[in-house]
Amino acid sequence: MPMLDFYYDFSSPYGYFAATKIAAVAGKHGYSVNWRPILLGAVFKVTGSGPLPSLPLKGPYGLRDMARTARFHGIPYRYPTPFPIPTQAPARIVYWLEATDPTKVEAATLALYRAYFVDGRNIADPEIAADVASTLGIAGEAALAASNDPTLKDRLRNETQAAIERGVFGSPTVFIGEEQFWGVDRFDQIERWLREGRF
Amino acid sequence: MPMLDFYYDFSSPYGYFAATKIAAVAGKHGYSVNWRPILLGAVFKVTGSGPLPSLPLKGPYGLRDMARTARFHGIPYRYPTPFPIPTQAPARIVYWLEATDPTKVEAATLALYRAYFVDGRNIADPEIAADVASTLGIAGEAALAASNDPTLKDRLRNETQAAIERGVFGSPTVFIGEEQFWGVDRFDQIERWLREGRF
Repeated sequence: MPMLDFYYDFSSPYGYFAATKIAAVAGKHGYSVNWRPILLGAVFKVTGSGPLPSLPLKGPYGLRDMARTARFHGIPYRYPTPFPIPTQAPARIVYWLEATDPTKVEAATLALYRAYFVDGRNIADPEIAADVASTLGIAGEAALAASNDPTLKDRLRNETQAAIERGVFGSPTVFIGEEQFWGVDRFDQIERWLREGRF
Repeated sequence: MPMLDFYYDFSSPYGYFAATKIAAVAGKHGYSVNWRPILLGAVFKVTGSGPLPSLPLKGPYGLRDMARTARFHGIPYRYPTPFPIPTQAPARIVYWLEATDPTKVEAATLALYRAYFVDGRNIADPEIAADVASTLGIAGEAALAASNDPTLKDRLRNETQAAIERGVFGSPTVFIGEEQFWGVDRFDQIERWLREGRF
């Protein structure tokens, strides 16, 4: 089965919205999803940008657009506090699952996103991230250890660096082969690309 | 007839794409379009951003996304050289038409956009902008004079400043009442907002 690459940061609302949709869109066209959590903080060092709420003019609009976009798609969403958050812990847990229990990667991604963007739980805290994982039948102690594992630290750093080298500058980003799509608002183009091969 | 406000810079490909669609979308729901050309250069001084091609990582993606988005919507488009351009001349001609021959504002906007993004004519040059206007039965000499008229210079400056104060940070931006939408990729939300009043 061909794969598309899905890059996301756990602190990105648009990444969350896209995560709720990407597997169904991919599956409809015979693709599976390669889940790639990354750290936008490292990306922003290259682009000179920053978290949306911090940007003049664009920040206030962004907060409104996030809430409206959630309503538009019918996705549960509450603006979390604090926002944004560092997302090393949930991202490392995903790479640990990929190596140890890959069928749980999608469910863990969605559970972690929902914990933050629906229930307002601060998944930056490794104990909270591990507790969310444990609701999926994943051993909480092992998930907690993963969030502090040096190998997984390197893994996340390398995945983020590889994403930047590939041209990723925001979350969500989808690659179908070498074709890059940024934003949940490119899902119409992604669907057509998957359906027609290209356009 | 209620109006929606459509803010655009003549050097913005996404503004061009949106301009080809906005009147039909508005008209379908009983709205007319208040055409507001502005200068993104002044906006970027406030936001600290810059023209898309100049941005690290986002620039190369942007060039590709512009071309793909044009194909997606079936809109004729060629990446122009030079890009971007200063757009005082075409913007002032639009405000002059608004005061003197308002039924021609939409056609002039589309003709100027097409001259730049389809025919590769540099509409930053007042003579070229006036020549494009003249193809619509507008007196070319008067259009040329408008592009250098101190009153219209003030008008464009004031419209741009008012847009910034209202929160405009990019092109295209649509306001329906106080609700702001940025990007041709928000037309799905714009349509629903016009249809349902809000959502």
